[in-house]
Amino acid sequence: MAAPSDDAAVWRGDRFVVATTDTMVEDIDFRLDWPGFDFRALGRRLMSVNLSDLAAMGAAPRYALISLVLRRGTTASDVTELYRGIAERARRFGCAVAGGDLSETSGPLTVTASLIGRLTSARRLLSRRGARPGWQIAVTGSLGGAAAGLRLLESRRRPASQAERSWVRSQLDPIPQVEAGQVLVGVGIRVGGDISDGLHREVERLLDGSSIGATIDVGMLPLARGLATTSWELAVRDSEDFELICAAPARTMQVTQRSLARRDLRLTVIGQFEGERGIRLRNGSRLEKLEGAGYEHFR
Amino acid sequence: MAAPSDDAAVWRGDRFVVATTDTMVEDIDFRLDWPGFDFRALGRRLMSVNLSDLAAMGAAPRYALISLVLRRGTTASDVTELYRGIAERARRFGCAVAGGDLSETSGPLTVTASLIGRLTSARRLLSRRGARPGWQIAVTGSLGGAAAGLRLLESRRRPASQAERSWVRSQLDPIPQVEAGQVLVGVGIRVGGDISDGLHREVERLLDGSSIGATIDVGMLPLARGLATTSWELAVRDSEDFELICAAPARTMQVTQRSLARRDLRLTVIGQFEGERGIRLRNGSRLEKLEGAGYEHFR
Repeated sequence: MAAPSDDAAVWRGDRFVVATTDTMVEDIDFRLDWPGFDFRALGRRLMSVNLSDLAAMGAAPRYALISLVLRRGTTASDVTELYRGIAERARRFGCAVAGGDLSETSGPLTVTASLIGRLTSARRLLSRRGARPGWQIAVTGSLGGAAAGLRLLESRRRPASQAERSWVRSQLDPIPQVEAGQVLVGVGIRVGGDISDGLHREVERLLDGSSIGATIDVGMLPLARGLATTSWELAVRDSEDFELICAAPARTMQVTQRSLARRDLRLTVIGQFEGERGIRLRNGSRLEKLEGAGYEHFR
Repeated sequence: MAAPSDDAAVWRGDRFVVATTDTMVEDIDFRLDWPGFDFRALGRRLMSVNLSDLAAMGAAPRYALISLVLRRGTTASDVTELYRGIAERARRFGCAVAGGDLSETSGPLTVTASLIGRLTSARRLLSRRGARPGWQIAVTGSLGGAAAGLRLLESRRRPASQAERSWVRSQLDPIPQVEAGQVLVGVGIRVGGDISDGLHREVERLLDGSSIGATIDVGMLPLARGLATTSWELAVRDSEDFELICAAPARTMQVTQRSLARRDLRLTVIGQFEGERGIRLRNGSRLEKLEGAGYEHFR
């Protein structure tokens, strides 16, 4: 690392590099008046959004560059808290904050992180391409919590139960699946991504450019605790859970589940890829076609 | 590089890496209603700002990550033009656009680039630390053009002469000194930076943390063509020229000048570092102390 007085950061490079960038805009991607949310939580969330993109490729985080565009009225202590949240989450995942930029805006607070990660080889990574008919589809962790938390926050009702508090936490302070991503590539999985833009949207992306399709079984979805099974749409359509999705033959999936279980991480098969195009949802004996869900800005 | 469908970009890494990030906010860092400025010019300028930070360390540009936060009303063709400008400048300096993010804001257009560059060794780089008394101070190119161009733009008067047009170009479409930076480290210069935040500000930074000072000789400043010698303040205080500054013993400086001249690049000695603290300005027989100039947001 160069002196922090320089405009750019320097470090000894890795053989295979991954980089990603994500911006969060106030009132679009977050609201500072959400109960329980603040500048520090925003810092953590900014890092988590970007760390999740690295996790989605199975990369190990290395360096972060941070650009903060502050609105008038932001205090020095707000900025300190923001950096504290960034540093906290960066440290947890072995990532060094290597540099940044600070400017001012008449508009909403706008924060950007660019993350640089490492792969152990150019082939050992998760990519959206390559899913085959017959392969199982699986997700890490549990689903629907982030969407349920967002509804709660927007209703302005205080979370009343342990389950409700965990939903809000999934929304406000999601933990990226960095370790799981590295386990997945380590055991040989090559197809996957993260579902923080929505499960349905990510399945669409895995199918994009191929001539195959997928069926998701609603009954198999690992719903967040406290969610009624009738709330499955929260896990499929509006989901913003910071979990990973992956695809592989059943045998590979079993090996992967065992490998993750040893680290107290969960992987649940939720459906499979098929020769027939489209995304289908199996709900008991009903089979319906699912279209146009997920969440995406500016498309 | 990974498939553009993935959230992150992948490439084979370099041994020594440099990274930098800079954000530009509409109406603070640029105005789209400047005559001769548009989305394409903005794209070029965004890249130039960041490329200049890499040039300031003597690094070769490699990859860029772009985050665009668009205000409502931005059209698809505006975005296309913006990307076109980014790609144009990236290509010129051998830099690949490796990924990006697109979002929307209720505030001003906000654009961020993060650039990753390569060094040939961990020691062959320019840094702000290490200037010694007796060393010469030199700058690439010419000075004052960008500041003169900004005044012209803000006066809303159309540039009337070739010189005025070149000033406006220095402001709207500055060319980063990427090649010069690499030549400087190649011949052994280790102390330097870029002066796009102002010459005076950058000399201050080179002195920061040391107990030495500097004298700049006004008569030696390589003023942009058409600038009267009485306009020297434009080159010192308000300057936003995308040029490099460096410091070295006189003998090294001569070698460097010859090396740059072979590439049609200019390096002009403008003063020297001295044992006495502070920044002094020699104007003929007058010597004055210079304080608090330069341009910096949010300090």
